[in-house]
Amino acid sequence: MGRGCATPLVPCASVSLLVQKFGGTSVVDADRIKAVADHIVRTRREGDDVVVVVSAMGRTTDELERLAHEVSPAPAPREMDMLLTAGERISISLLCMALIDRSQRAVSFTGSQAGIVTDTSHGKAKIVEVRADRIRDAVAAGDVAVVAGFQGVSTARDVTTLGRGGSDTTAVALAAVLGARACEIYTDVAGVYTADPRIVPEARILPRLSYEEMLDMSATGGRVLALRSVEFARNHGVPVHVRSSFTWQPGTWVEEEDPSMEQAIISGVTHDSSEAKITIQQVPDRPGVAATIFRALADELVNVDMIVQNVSNVSQHTDVSFTVPKEDLPRALRVMEKVQAEIAAAGLSHDPAIGRVSLVGAGMKSHPGVAAQMFEVLASEGINIEMISTSAIRISCVVSETDVEKAVRALHRAFQLEDVGGEA
Amino acid sequence: MGRGCATPLVPCASVSLLVQKFGGTSVVDADRIKAVADHIVRTRREGDDVVVVVSAMGRTTDELERLAHEVSPAPAPREMDMLLTAGERISISLLCMALIDRSQRAVSFTGSQAGIVTDTSHGKAKIVEVRADRIRDAVAAGDVAVVAGFQGVSTARDVTTLGRGGSDTTAVALAAVLGARACEIYTDVAGVYTADPRIVPEARILPRLSYEEMLDMSATGGRVLALRSVEFARNHGVPVHVRSSFTWQPGTWVEEEDPSMEQAIISGVTHDSSEAKITIQQVPDRPGVAATIFRALADELVNVDMIVQNVSNVSQHTDVSFTVPKEDLPRALRVMEKVQAEIAAAGLSHDPAIGRVSLVGAGMKSHPGVAAQMFEVLASEGINIEMISTSAIRISCVVSETDVEKAVRALHRAFQLEDVGGEA
Repeated sequence: MGRGCATPLVPCASVSLLVQKFGGTSVVDADRIKAVADHIVRTRREGDDVVVVVSAMGRTTDELERLAHEVSPAPAPREMDMLLTAGERISISLLCMALIDRSQRAVSFTGSQAGIVTDTSHGKAKIVEVRADRIRDAVAAGDVAVVAGFQGVSTARDVTTLGRGGSDTTAVALAAVLGARACEIYTDVAGVYTADPRIVPEARILPRLSYEEMLDMSATGGRVLALRSVEFARNHGVPVHVRSSFTWQPGTWVEEEDPSMEQAIISGVTHDSSEAKITIQQVPDRPGVAATIFRALADELVNVDMIVQNVSNVSQHTDVSFTVPKEDLPRALRVMEKVQAEIAAAGLSHDPAIGRVSLVGAGMKSHPGVAAQMFEVLASEGINIEMISTSAIRISCVVSETDVEKAVRALHRAFQLEDVGGEA
Repeated sequence: MGRGCATPLVPCASVSLLVQKFGGTSVVDADRIKAVADHIVRTRREGDDVVVVVSAMGRTTDELERLAHEVSPAPAPREMDMLLTAGERISISLLCMALIDRSQRAVSFTGSQAGIVTDTSHGKAKIVEVRADRIRDAVAAGDVAVVAGFQGVSTARDVTTLGRGGSDTTAVALAAVLGARACEIYTDVAGVYTADPRIVPEARILPRLSYEEMLDMSATGGRVLALRSVEFARNHGVPVHVRSSFTWQPGTWVEEEDPSMEQAIISGVTHDSSEAKITIQQVPDRPGVAATIFRALADELVNVDMIVQNVSNVSQHTDVSFTVPKEDLPRALRVMEKVQAEIAAAGLSHDPAIGRVSLVGAGMKSHPGVAAQMFEVLASEGINIEMISTSAIRISCVVSETDVEKAVRALHRAFQLEDVGGEA
């Protein structure tokens, strides 16, 4: 029986459940915490049960990391997790206090108490199981369950963290296990935009995106949702609603693509200037060479993103280019100097001053010519394309870092993304 | 087998265990945490296994309480405990990082992980059981176990706190359960003094005290050790060593009285100016009146300390005086106004400007005349005594607050406490 059934004679409709996740900027101080509590109470009054997932307040996690580095040059990972999980402990308890003040029953749960069981990879643990019995009991008792995001307990009974963006993953995992009707991700932006509104003032909030589009946008610089949480949502079919904790207005729904609906060709333009490009020149084109290069990088834990290799020319040699996070560039270059000698490549060059501009849209699957139009738009702006890579619903071009904003604006305009349902 | 046995041919003496507790001032910043880590490593090198109990850094607990009151006028007790336990989480993990940097294996444990099981009284929980299996396993594996003080997990699986001074209790309880050879309480003072050295510059550190003496000193204003932890130590026969985390010099041992040793008559002079006095005048001297008064106060959770009632005079009426913490005075007076009418007492008076001065010493049991000498000393200083109460090893006098320091100095001098083994 759901709570709030006025008369015992009328069968009570089963109450539906929402998971609401609030990021650090949504709980940055006492006033924001009270505003969040007000919103949760409103949601309950509208008839949904609510499970809440909270991140640490504001920059708490960064502050704790700074403290760790004051004590130790290389903090032990298990202890780093013990330390960082103090952050959400503070926000969950404060939010519960505010809810209880508003006559709303509420109980806080650490990741461990909420049954978020992970592997033992401290700092980047993966969820292996969710034993949500205590959460279910709390909801059944009429409580709002307030769960610490980002954290869990390992199979070895140690406290773990899920890595940056982990709170989104906690929220989606709980929504999946509890059968929530949606997972609402409250943040400091109003939803997912057709492009970064700081670069394109006429950028528009997308009311709806497929999981695949959101994945490609997250992977290419749209930082609203953590990639892992989108994958988790897609794998478990959890509808995600990205929205603002400042205006409380509807934002962007991320869910199963609806084949009956007309798709816009392009959903948005994303960009990312956090990577650097490395090119290894005149690589002998024989089996195993690419494996040698990327195994060496993987062994040094360098995160390679885009990889482009052209077909070999007449000389049976080819250039291989790839991008890595800028902070990994020195490490990657050291690895590549060794590899270059090993595979007898002619040279090695790198460029940290690059940016990637991507068009994402499920509609481009059935609309040939999008890539050609993208290259024409960039050419007409005098922008040189250094690398190209594509997927079924995404085209990415690496350009000079100084051309990124111009490229984003030109593409947004050319594909008419400021118009609802706009097509080129 | 203990670790560090140099040759396998020589049987290895069983390694003994020390519990070391570090208060908030001992771990106030990164530098102090590193100094504590250095000391723990030294202790290990000298051959002891070590279990460490840590409080929250500096004023962290006060800061978290302030935050709670920004969010809520009356924070929910369960959530307050969830909040406050973030404090020790930070200090245990940072201390472990520092130990691991020093090549000393270390593992942090929350109160819950350390098996500190309590009742469900949030904010002032009592330990009901210590399931120290994980601590024992860690020590057997060669780790320093670093345990969060002040916190536990209730029989209802909620996080609890033990109240102020709770970290001392955690340390003593672990020492008892683990059979430690001693519990070292590191603090910002050098030990237990014959009187407050800020008032009596020639005050001296007592090398040794019985549990009973320490109890009376804690109860009457000697704030070095929390009363509960001393009771726990006495009940379980745990030797406690109070010492400085700044000089690392030996301090005061609190342990079983050794009947073979000559006792000094008086161990120290304590004082306390945190209480106020209430007198209810001309109370009819019939059975049940005292019960009425103190039941009414207990029901309002007013903490009554000293109680003095004289034999009744010819009129069959008597005055009853008692002391309460100054912050409870308004509440206590409201209660007493009702009680006064109920029991038909003649009047009610109160005085917040009082202080208590106490002489504590196991030796006074066998030395009559200590009380008389105390009263003579106060009289010769022109100090009026407002209330007197005694136990077998303590005499307390309530005097005017302005006379407290003069009384402490005069008594310290008269009983020659500046001399080692001094007697009057």
